[in-house]
Amino acid sequence: MTLHRWKLTIEYNGTRYSGWQRQENGVPSVQAAIEDAITKFCQQDIRLHAAGRTDAGVHAQGQVAHFDLDYGDRPLSGHDLAKALNAHLRGETIAVLKAEQAAADFHARFSAVNKLYRYRMLCRPAPPTLDRDRVWHVWRRLNTAAMREAASCLFGHHDFTSFRDSQCQAKSPMRTLGRLDITESRYDDADGVEIAFELEAQSFLHHQVRNIVGTLVLVGEDKWTPGDVNTALEAKDRSRAGPTAPAAGLTLVRIDYA
Amino acid sequence: MTLHRWKLTIEYNGTRYSGWQRQENGVPSVQAAIEDAITKFCQQDIRLHAAGRTDAGVHAQGQVAHFDLDYGDRPLSGHDLAKALNAHLRGETIAVLKAEQAAADFHARFSAVNKLYRYRMLCRPAPPTLDRDRVWHVWRRLNTAAMREAASCLFGHHDFTSFRDSQCQAKSPMRTLGRLDITESRYDDADGVEIAFELEAQSFLHHQVRNIVGTLVLVGEDKWTPGDVNTALEAKDRSRAGPTAPAAGLTLVRIDYA
Repeated sequence: MTLHRWKLTIEYNGTRYSGWQRQENGVPSVQAAIEDAITKFCQQDIRLHAAGRTDAGVHAQGQVAHFDLDYGDRPLSGHDLAKALNAHLRGETIAVLKAEQAAADFHARFSAVNKLYRYRMLCRPAPPTLDRDRVWHVWRRLNTAAMREAASCLFGHHDFTSFRDSQCQAKSPMRTLGRLDITESRYDDADGVEIAFELEAQSFLHHQVRNIVGTLVLVGEDKWTPGDVNTALEAKDRSRAGPTAPAAGLTLVRIDYA
Repeated sequence: MTLHRWKLTIEYNGTRYSGWQRQENGVPSVQAAIEDAITKFCQQDIRLHAAGRTDAGVHAQGQVAHFDLDYGDRPLSGHDLAKALNAHLRGETIAVLKAEQAAADFHARFSAVNKLYRYRMLCRPAPPTLDRDRVWHVWRRLNTAAMREAASCLFGHHDFTSFRDSQCQAKSPMRTLGRLDITESRYDDADGVEIAFELEAQSFLHHQVRNIVGTLVLVGEDKWTPGDVNTALEAKDRSRAGPTAPAAGLTLVRIDYA
């Protein structure tokens, strides 16, 4: 028996899935769809480990997952594996962008040194059509400068208890935000504006990005001052921060490995 | 009776529509959806005139259409009209971005001085997921430099008979392409490349953009030389040019008025 560890880079539109993680009740999940595709290809039950277990409705441009495959002594290229999996994934909104052999100690989650998430908001009266499932739609313009000012206190190493879901299973609430950029760009010819939040860290707490965005938007709407975000952070109490932003706006963009 | 002419700027995902134009057989069309929304709002049968009658599956970021409305002496703002129409369009993938009163002689189609279309291709082995209905997917990289060289002969004033649909109803096959830019950008972290074609003209022939793209791709695939495109143009014969590129990649981006 020759076990090889494979690393997959995966893109998906998460709208129709209950999230990354396979569910007991058989509802569609990204993990189940890809595991089933691998099983169809190799007739083995395998277990896929993802870098980030995205929630229902969250998208990925570059999710990474690994699994171990016994393919005997037959040659198997990454190109052929990805092609076969994509054939079995037809009908899903999931695609394997790349399949590569990895070192035996490579772990999609624990070997990651950096993750990039992007959260997109569309600010205009008219609802989104082309990006319907890809953005959080708000009617009014937001105060981006105030959100940037508020975001500065979240940068760096902090106890993010106020921004993690009450169900979060991480042992420590300490995380280091390496980047939190907020950019504004014109979206259409009718004063529509897109605001993109880009957050980087080695790892995130459950709902951390969406809770940060949901809180910063209170500042963007002039309901909170930038200082209120620092107060919420220091309170170390989930109930003191803002609501969780909707899943559709969030995309796991990229995972970096050493 | 006080007739006012209204100009609408409209965004839509064209995937589920038979195109802009209302069909006799009642299949969903963008025009019918908006006309019905206007009728629900004002209880009048009105007729909507678009700048460009997009085909089935073609999208718009900035389609423009006009109609005449008798709203009596009651005040009606563009903001309120757009809001009301978007409420009636709920469930459709169509949104009115802007409604403005226009001069009585404004015509969405005949007053247009310039139109911008964008055609997007995704070149990579894996199928698209996030942009599934928005791009033409091809497996292999294309030779963008060769396509640019081939495109140069199409720039300017020409008889575009070879690039217009046999059903095209325009009186003259003469058109002036003011711009035909081809740009290449990285699409994902797995060597996927997006190629965008941007074409501008005061008006286009039926299928002109898709026939030009379908022909240039033959050059990108190294099946044709750049000179073959000039030969096709000079032949003034539709059968001498390449196939029609799929609708999904095409978006009507913007219409300019004097």
